[in-house]
Amino acid sequence: MQQSFDSDRFRQALGTFTTGVTIVTTVDAAGSDVGVTANSFNSVSLAPPMVLWSLARTSTSLAAFLAARYFAVHVLASDQQALATRFSTRGADRFAGLNPARGADGIALLDRCAARFECRTAFQYEGGDHVIFVGEVLNFEHCEREPLVFKRGRFALAVGKMPAPHQAGVAQASAADGAFGEDFLMYLLGRAYFQLYQRIRPEILRRNLGDAEYLTLSLLGVRDGRTVAELDSLLAYSGTRVTEGVAVRLAELSLVELDGTPGDGRRLLLTAFGRRSVVELLAVAEAASADAEKSLDPSESHVLRQLLASLVEASNPGIPHPWQT
Amino acid sequence: MQQSFDSDRFRQALGTFTTGVTIVTTVDAAGSDVGVTANSFNSVSLAPPMVLWSLARTSTSLAAFLAARYFAVHVLASDQQALATRFSTRGADRFAGLNPARGADGIALLDRCAARFECRTAFQYEGGDHVIFVGEVLNFEHCEREPLVFKRGRFALAVGKMPAPHQAGVAQASAADGAFGEDFLMYLLGRAYFQLYQRIRPEILRRNLGDAEYLTLSLLGVRDGRTVAELDSLLAYSGTRVTEGVAVRLAELSLVELDGTPGDGRRLLLTAFGRRSVVELLAVAEAASADAEKSLDPSESHVLRQLLASLVEASNPGIPHPWQT
Repeated sequence: MQQSFDSDRFRQALGTFTTGVTIVTTVDAAGSDVGVTANSFNSVSLAPPMVLWSLARTSTSLAAFLAARYFAVHVLASDQQALATRFSTRGADRFAGLNPARGADGIALLDRCAARFECRTAFQYEGGDHVIFVGEVLNFEHCEREPLVFKRGRFALAVGKMPAPHQAGVAQASAADGAFGEDFLMYLLGRAYFQLYQRIRPEILRRNLGDAEYLTLSLLGVRDGRTVAELDSLLAYSGTRVTEGVAVRLAELSLVELDGTPGDGRRLLLTAFGRRSVVELLAVAEAASADAEKSLDPSESHVLRQLLASLVEASNPGIPHPWQT
Repeated sequence: MQQSFDSDRFRQALGTFTTGVTIVTTVDAAGSDVGVTANSFNSVSLAPPMVLWSLARTSTSLAAFLAARYFAVHVLASDQQALATRFSTRGADRFAGLNPARGADGIALLDRCAARFECRTAFQYEGGDHVIFVGEVLNFEHCEREPLVFKRGRFALAVGKMPAPHQAGVAQASAADGAFGEDFLMYLLGRAYFQLYQRIRPEILRRNLGDAEYLTLSLLGVRDGRTVAELDSLLAYSGTRVTEGVAVRLAELSLVELDGTPGDGRRLLLTAFGRRSVVELLAVAEAASADAEKSLDPSESHVLRQLLASLVEASNPGIPHPWQT
């Protein structure tokens, strides 16, 4: 049954098991701080409360952990990725600038983690080329910070899984019959976009603006002084055209001043009133987003933006983003 | 230092450490299949290859695992959530219908997992109210299936983390100045939607249709025979109006037949040509989505839809979905 063992393939197979990321700290015999990044952590026992993790026999920190009476395990939050990297980098000054609190025997207690377990070394077990450390948990803390995740060798975020559509009791649609279903991406995108847009539309109408005028103003908010042609090409993704008529309309409303003769090369410059209007419209848009995102946790909001950005890049016909030009 | 220990709070703190989900199988002395769901799995050693997991001393499966020479750990894929639940439910007929392959000593080997490790029991260690099992890995397999994840007591999916925006080298925008940035949700949603929509627009124009006519046709694809008023209220989220004029235009193009006298109560019924047109337009839309989603893995696509659905619900002013009416 034994087959020749490919270490890389074994690592890859192990990588399918997603884990959180921890930093384990202790002090050595000289009282110096010692700490390592480990994703080999897991819970063991509830009564007595125990956790475990393992450390390679080749680790320069092994001697300190073997001799330590106490250690602390920190489950890292999603914004502590840099710390995870630092504590797994050979030669890095791992505790520089951290100014940690101190636990039993003076071990470093890092803050802003998702959870922290102060442990007494209970058992040290043989585990091949690693030593398994089992700690009895003396103290613990946890907070609502989003945990950092490690998956297939990359940092990740975990997002709660909802029931599959057919489990939610909604009839399945058949594309072959021309019926789109609730997982139809274009519908979800369009509906999410337009529902948010309807929240700002009253503000747009109240200012006697149309969609093209609003979108033009928001582009000028990012960078002022663009020409009609530049604005039109930036909005090409939307199907909305920026014409001379849009420029004149905005000028009539005292939102922009026009620089140059009529035509594609004429520049639009926000007036103070125009700038204030953009700030106000943006605030309404952000309030609408924040309201809709109440149902999402911070990690979900982050992931949503990240996935949308991927989708936008993959479907981009070559139009730059407004802050790139 | 010891504080009174709140078991629920301890569990919650442990729950911040995200894990994959495994099923561990073996056979008992009578040759019967035994299996449990465990998220206490982790890697231990590369040479020799070793993994560990732990099992409660109160588990009815403990005796079988203590006596077993071999066990198999299955890292579950994202679509195996029901199996995880089944193998953690007391009294469930856990192996019913699975028809597993067989490993050493006849232990059940489940398929369609993200990874599978066949192990020889190497060590059994004390771990408080659990026993820690360390297995030497004799054989393993893994495939590209998305792994199932467990986070804070819920099933989840892990999505790769991208650099924070400011690390990506894009200038930060200031909402206070009226400039939106690359994390402006309404921009990301609108741009993603419109870029996909631009992919089907040529097909819409080629059929002499406008946006309202296209959206009306797609609603009829989900359910035929709706009235002008019903269609208009279903599209209210988008700001697009369905009027008598839209109905007449679709009839002129032989895409629908009109039933009833002119007015809001008039019903639209797809002709065979209309139905075929909807199927074709939907196919183009799905191809555009699939193309844009090439950059996402299956778990990311699932999470994207799930998060968009949450957003749509949270921002829904009370308009039903087309397949709900």
